[in-house]
Amino acid sequence: MNQNTKTAGLIIIGNEILSGRTQDTNTKTIALRLGEIGVQLTEVRVIPDIIETIIENVKYFSSNFDYVFTTGGIGPTHDDKTAEAVAKAFGTDLYQHPDALSVLIDHYGGAEHMNDGRIKMTYVPHGSTLIDNPVSRAPGFKIDNVHVMAGVPKIMEGMLLNVIPTLDGGDIIKSKQLIINKPESEVASILQSLEDEFDGLDVGSYPRYKDGKPEVTIILRGVDEDILGEAFEKLEALI
Amino acid sequence: MNQNTKTAGLIIIGNEILSGRTQDTNTKTIALRLGEIGVQLTEVRVIPDIIETIIENVKYFSSNFDYVFTTGGIGPTHDDKTAEAVAKAFGTDLYQHPDALSVLIDHYGGAEHMNDGRIKMTYVPHGSTLIDNPVSRAPGFKIDNVHVMAGVPKIMEGMLLNVIPTLDGGDIIKSKQLIINKPESEVASILQSLEDEFDGLDVGSYPRYKDGKPEVTIILRGVDEDILGEAFEKLEALI
Repeated sequence: MNQNTKTAGLIIIGNEILSGRTQDTNTKTIALRLGEIGVQLTEVRVIPDIIETIIENVKYFSSNFDYVFTTGGIGPTHDDKTAEAVAKAFGTDLYQHPDALSVLIDHYGGAEHMNDGRIKMTYVPHGSTLIDNPVSRAPGFKIDNVHVMAGVPKIMEGMLLNVIPTLDGGDIIKSKQLIINKPESEVASILQSLEDEFDGLDVGSYPRYKDGKPEVTIILRGVDEDILGEAFEKLEALI
Repeated sequence: MNQNTKTAGLIIIGNEILSGRTQDTNTKTIALRLGEIGVQLTEVRVIPDIIETIIENVKYFSSNFDYVFTTGGIGPTHDDKTAEAVAKAFGTDLYQHPDALSVLIDHYGGAEHMNDGRIKMTYVPHGSTLIDNPVSRAPGFKIDNVHVMAGVPKIMEGMLLNVIPTLDGGDIIKSKQLIINKPESEVASILQSLEDEFDGLDVGSYPRYKDGKPEVTIILRGVDEDILGEAFEKLEALI
């Protein structure tokens, strides 16, 4: 939308989203947190936990966006393949990170409680740094511009809050919204004229039904607060 | 997951999902409805309403999946670009469909109530057939294997219910689930051994927190009911 906004891509690794069993909520959480620091979520892909598919998408996203996030597939079970796939995407493999090991030994109450599944979670790609997990301790990791996080929303959010301060943000897109009780088709031409008139203004219109009646939320977005204010006054006058 | 399951890809066209303003729920609705007829949702992409981006993704999905669905961007406003982009993806352009016109003239109470926005919604790509919209009347359309539907969940679902009976389904994947109150890391090796032992069995494990305690839903999936039953008995015995 503008030259100084940083871009991000999100890869959701999870058969449970694709089967319809689980409702994804991580997209919204990540989009909002990134928006606050001027990073624009630009594409989201939901893919199954197949190693080749993960590798291909991580490579593509890493070269096409400033920041990449993945959620899911870093747990202790056989269907958790993200760490291995991300390592391969960067031409490397996994090693046991000593800090991840000591965090988990501490968390589970001693080395004698470490089993294969728990040990699996101490392995990260060479060249990565850990992302602290304040909830269930098993860390995520960052390699190059890719941030690998858990899929469970509560754990993901804990990790994300540790990642956000490490990112360089861009211009923050501000917005103003107006909700009207008319069908969208009555205001379409007004919205088009508004976007044409104001430089750098993005006009979105989002219809929905409320108690069976059409309602439209009109959102003006832009980085320049003055232009946004002017455009909003004009919108109110025209509607 | 198996040879006789049909695949589907979903393209969600919507800046409002990428900005975090709106929580997508269409993925889950579509995934569940497709699953019931043996069509496996295999990839979802959320992309912005940029014509070139839509064209590129529609082309890729149309050649890679049995069925493609798009949601969003077919309304009356300037930011609704899906119909134009889908037409271009198939090397054609838009024309006014007479049935779409008469449905909307009827819906809005006469030709004198048709404005530019409403007329926009009567245009579909050459070679497409209409998808009836029981909610707000403006139709979706199908071209080749691509089904173009509205983004508003209520309207999308109305259209989807008209599309589902027109699809050829595949083998239906059945599932059985067991919820346990243990951390996932305690059962990882059992799940791996189960998947190795039974042919065509897919074992998923989905951790979450309930009242602050770890809980894992283990889901066995497969097309063969006998194998599923046997595997489930073994799972119960092992846990």
